[in-house]
Amino acid sequence: MKPVVILVCPQMCENVGMAARAMMNCGLDEMRLVNPRENHLDDKAVAASSGAERILQQAKVFSSTAEAVADLNLLYASTARRRNMVKTVETAQAAAHEIVEKAAQGVRSGILFGPERTGLHNDDVALADKIIEIPLNPEHCSLNLSQAVLLVSYEWYKTQVNVPEVQMVTNNGVLASKEKLYHFFDFLESKLKDCRAFQDDEKRPKMLINLHNIFLRGELTEQELNTLYGIVTYLSSH
Amino acid sequence: MKPVVILVCPQMCENVGMAARAMMNCGLDEMRLVNPRENHLDDKAVAASSGAERILQQAKVFSSTAEAVADLNLLYASTARRRNMVKTVETAQAAAHEIVEKAAQGVRSGILFGPERTGLHNDDVALADKIIEIPLNPEHCSLNLSQAVLLVSYEWYKTQVNVPEVQMVTNNGVLASKEKLYHFFDFLESKLKDCRAFQDDEKRPKMLINLHNIFLRGELTEQELNTLYGIVTYLSSH
Repeated sequence: MKPVVILVCPQMCENVGMAARAMMNCGLDEMRLVNPRENHLDDKAVAASSGAERILQQAKVFSSTAEAVADLNLLYASTARRRNMVKTVETAQAAAHEIVEKAAQGVRSGILFGPERTGLHNDDVALADKIIEIPLNPEHCSLNLSQAVLLVSYEWYKTQVNVPEVQMVTNNGVLASKEKLYHFFDFLESKLKDCRAFQDDEKRPKMLINLHNIFLRGELTEQELNTLYGIVTYLSSH
Repeated sequence: MKPVVILVCPQMCENVGMAARAMMNCGLDEMRLVNPRENHLDDKAVAASSGAERILQQAKVFSSTAEAVADLNLLYASTARRRNMVKTVETAQAAAHEIVEKAAQGVRSGILFGPERTGLHNDDVALADKIIEIPLNPEHCSLNLSQAVLLVSYEWYKTQVNVPEVQMVTNNGVLASKEKLYHFFDFLESKLKDCRAFQDDEKRPKMLINLHNIFLRGELTEQELNTLYGIVTYLSSH
């Protein structure tokens, strides 16, 4: 059960289109609009959605926020300004995790985003259970509408995927075994000897260690090792 | 030491302006431009930067990526497409943490972002130590330039602040003590008794427990408790 994105009184249809694009970037589908000022199916909106036209076409329009969220169970208001209200404030990340946990219990969530110039009206914030406050530079925390939608959607999407934080991408290449790597080290050393690189015997062990480390850090593939063999052969034969 | 944002051959100056806005939202300062197609100080760019004009004014322009990153120690390429390259790929979050850890050792980092339509050229990706791949819907992972800058900058900013994930914001209000809360429960119970709400004595304990739980979940402030006293008094006197 994915959260619903509700844009309250959005002013410019391009921003609605860009919000749809941001939603699709993050795997969200359902947009609802409360009294949009412009037609969200205008060419400008469709162009700005950059392929997320389906979200715009399926977006339902409501004449009040209360109607737009009537079927939802848990409602967040995304706002940058602190209101004079007693309410729970969560980061986008915390809210994303909560939305996912609650969804597992059948709870349907929605997130309100206000109009570009003013943000959500207090009456709309008051309709929500909780406030989402995206951690941003306090001296410049006003986000473009679609960027606010993007950050909240992005935090939700991150809970849905299990991407390795760091990975070595070798495409079809295979990392070289240590045997093959050490064999290359021996080859390199013998070629260096041939070229009389080790005139200073004292420095030789240190130099070899440095060379080993340079190539070990590289996590070389078999193909790259072959490239290195070629280079050394080429260099040493001239 | 904050990371430097390098926009390679950006096409539209509005996007450069919006990228500056996203950087300022996330506390980043230094933008560099490699062969921008349009003037980044154009009115359209300044308007799009929405207050981040300083970043545009201080942005340096270079005629090659190599020159633009010459003084940096660690370079990331932000790209959505997998390249046929053997390279370490990191999420924006992992890269952000790495940038911060390395900065503590005096390592200066930069992040390359490519032109809107095509993304980074392979030659520019090859100049970078590592690739940043933002986890996004694989069927729709093309981000607007400024949104890519926003997500990477946002992950960096998150490492810089220590915002509580969830907090109850009471403004100047003080959470009511348990004594005051239980006193209100007694008051409510006595008023309900006066109104003969407990005609069914069997249901009474359960009803009171439910009422207690409703108000306990609310984490009421002293001021809110006073409001509730007022409401109950008003209701019971009519």
